[in-house]
Amino acid sequence: MPFDYIPPLLNNAQKKIVLLVMDGLGGLPLEPGGLTELETASTPNMDRLAAQGVLGETVPIAPGITPGSGPAHLALFGYDPLVHAIGRGVLSAAGIGVPVRPGDVAARGNFCTLDADGKIIDRRAGRIPTEVARPLVEKLRTVQVPGMTVEVNVVKEYRFSIVLRGENLNAALEDTDPQTTGVPPYPVRAALPEARHTADLLNQWVAEARKVIADEPKANGFTLRGFATDPGLQPYADAYGLKAACIAVYPMYRGVASLVGMDVINFEGDHPEDEFAALAPVWEQYDFFFVHIKKTDSMGEDGNFDGKVKIIESVDAALPDLLALNPDVLIITGDHSTPAKLKSHSWHPVPFLLWAPETVIPDGQSEFGERACQQGGLGTFPALDTMPLALAHAERLNKYGA
Amino acid sequence: MPFDYIPPLLNNAQKKIVLLVMDGLGGLPLEPGGLTELETASTPNMDRLAAQGVLGETVPIAPGITPGSGPAHLALFGYDPLVHAIGRGVLSAAGIGVPVRPGDVAARGNFCTLDADGKIIDRRAGRIPTEVARPLVEKLRTVQVPGMTVEVNVVKEYRFSIVLRGENLNAALEDTDPQTTGVPPYPVRAALPEARHTADLLNQWVAEARKVIADEPKANGFTLRGFATDPGLQPYADAYGLKAACIAVYPMYRGVASLVGMDVINFEGDHPEDEFAALAPVWEQYDFFFVHIKKTDSMGEDGNFDGKVKIIESVDAALPDLLALNPDVLIITGDHSTPAKLKSHSWHPVPFLLWAPETVIPDGQSEFGERACQQGGLGTFPALDTMPLALAHAERLNKYGA
Repeated sequence: MPFDYIPPLLNNAQKKIVLLVMDGLGGLPLEPGGLTELETASTPNMDRLAAQGVLGETVPIAPGITPGSGPAHLALFGYDPLVHAIGRGVLSAAGIGVPVRPGDVAARGNFCTLDADGKIIDRRAGRIPTEVARPLVEKLRTVQVPGMTVEVNVVKEYRFSIVLRGENLNAALEDTDPQTTGVPPYPVRAALPEARHTADLLNQWVAEARKVIADEPKANGFTLRGFATDPGLQPYADAYGLKAACIAVYPMYRGVASLVGMDVINFEGDHPEDEFAALAPVWEQYDFFFVHIKKTDSMGEDGNFDGKVKIIESVDAALPDLLALNPDVLIITGDHSTPAKLKSHSWHPVPFLLWAPETVIPDGQSEFGERACQQGGLGTFPALDTMPLALAHAERLNKYGA
Repeated sequence: MPFDYIPPLLNNAQKKIVLLVMDGLGGLPLEPGGLTELETASTPNMDRLAAQGVLGETVPIAPGITPGSGPAHLALFGYDPLVHAIGRGVLSAAGIGVPVRPGDVAARGNFCTLDADGKIIDRRAGRIPTEVARPLVEKLRTVQVPGMTVEVNVVKEYRFSIVLRGENLNAALEDTDPQTTGVPPYPVRAALPEARHTADLLNQWVAEARKVIADEPKANGFTLRGFATDPGLQPYADAYGLKAACIAVYPMYRGVASLVGMDVINFEGDHPEDEFAALAPVWEQYDFFFVHIKKTDSMGEDGNFDGKVKIIESVDAALPDLLALNPDVLIITGDHSTPAKLKSHSWHPVPFLLWAPETVIPDGQSEFGERACQQGGLGTFPALDTMPLALAHAERLNKYGA
């Protein structure tokens, strides 16, 4: 449960909240004295919202800790990532809409290329395209062993998802991916005695499954990683009284959102304006909208400073479409920082803009950027505070105590 | 226990601390671009203290949470309101100086008007004045049942307090107030099996008590609410080594203060100058003074922006009387925000001024107001930190560890 003191305080206010997450938003100057990506970007719309709203910056997990995307989103959603872990297998399944229920065991699968001795020579099977992987997954689906069912689904390219269902299954299993070439995949091994039964069943399935793809030119083997079961996250409806929708292009973010009970909205296109356009048809049906922009992070990971600037500018340019819906509370932030300079996620606090014109005290900042956020009226605070702040400014919370 | 690491650090420094709480101090601009109540008020004395001291803002309970007055004061006093709850029955009794000891059960009583069928037609008995209620309370005092004693006291107008004392009493009882008219008061019902004995005894008492007021024209019935027992808060003397005094007009605040072991000082008048004047005669007897100003909150609740401004100004005008006593540490803050714009308590962080000229680093702010506090040197911090900061600046805490 994210905040046990919140559900008793919820009221029936009908104000709408938008949480716009630009993945990896926070950045760094390339040179001493320079500007960050966000500071460099021309963002007249966000700057206007900054002037009317209040700024701050969030610490995603804990000071100095660089988050993965899953934990960083959990924090934004109000679930302490130091308490709640979502296994990658569950994320992978959730991202393609496959439910993982309590007692199920999910894992990520990677097709790989094995040599004649069964040793891995390509951990990603030459990055076969999705169309090549699809019939292979169909073959894997034909493999069944007694004691459990195995649901196999294509994810993307060489990646697939498996979900085991049955009695007394346990997810305490070690990855079969040796993380290197020149050795065979590991067998499935139990990390705890109570998972030995599951390991035995799964090893039977793996042995049969390898047979059905043994003659494939590239994808003649596979590894399994990230075994996990349902994390049991309290749904948004119960935790916050919100009917929540997710607008995201990438499966993982759709997955995390679905694990907290958001409805994942399908739409065409992958540009900011496509995502914002997807809000309009469902605007009346939901109270809360999580909108996820992936490419800020991708550009940061690629070390593409200018590319990241352009993505931020494209979000800003599309923002009037979102504002036209008249949200009551709009938060614009990132899940973590991905400075192009570092070509990776980082631990830096994340710019945060809260726009709720009826209930904020504007802090005199008039530009959305790292340094303005450091000076912002909200200060530096845990990302976990995001949802309570959003609910408060939507006036959805009653008084605590008399 | 508020802070288990503090008692071992306490020394014998004799410096005096004043905690001046303007209830509901924090506000909001009425219009975008405008000033808050505190920013609008002309407060030359507080501004001078702000320039000499250091500012910040507190989060009373948790981010986004709007506090009631009881929890908000507990936080200022250093008792985490998410851990320690004070039932309203206990607050009510404490506010009129009636002790509630471990094992006692306290409740709030409301006189009401019943029709011939025993159904409530006025939940507040026409708001009878205190003078009318007093003889009725005298009648209720004559009612006794075996197994417990019942202390009944007038609070104000139609409100009274009862405290049950006896063996094996339990406060897990449901309110008898149906919160509506047209139905009779509920019987006393046990919320837990171990409270059934108490419910039985109290139902006997209620039946007898109703008989003695049955012929009253307005107050011919009553309801009971907020059953609670002593919350067991560690007294200030033990928690902080402080002999503490409370100067407050309203019963509830006197009540909370007495629950943490403060002596409640009696005085005449209800203006800020009356409250400050009450400090002088007892100045030498105490180390710590909690001074509570109620009307800032009342004006905020009424939506009276200008009225709240004037109350703040009246506190500022009287401040020289307080400063003439030469406190070593003076904190001026609120328990929560009550923006006139919202006509209610709110979740916004609360302006905080710490004046301790020998030990603070002035932060360059020269005005006491929300935006100056957002930029203040203390940052935004939990209200729970107030007492440790006060003790530290009074140099009452020794070093932790070697």
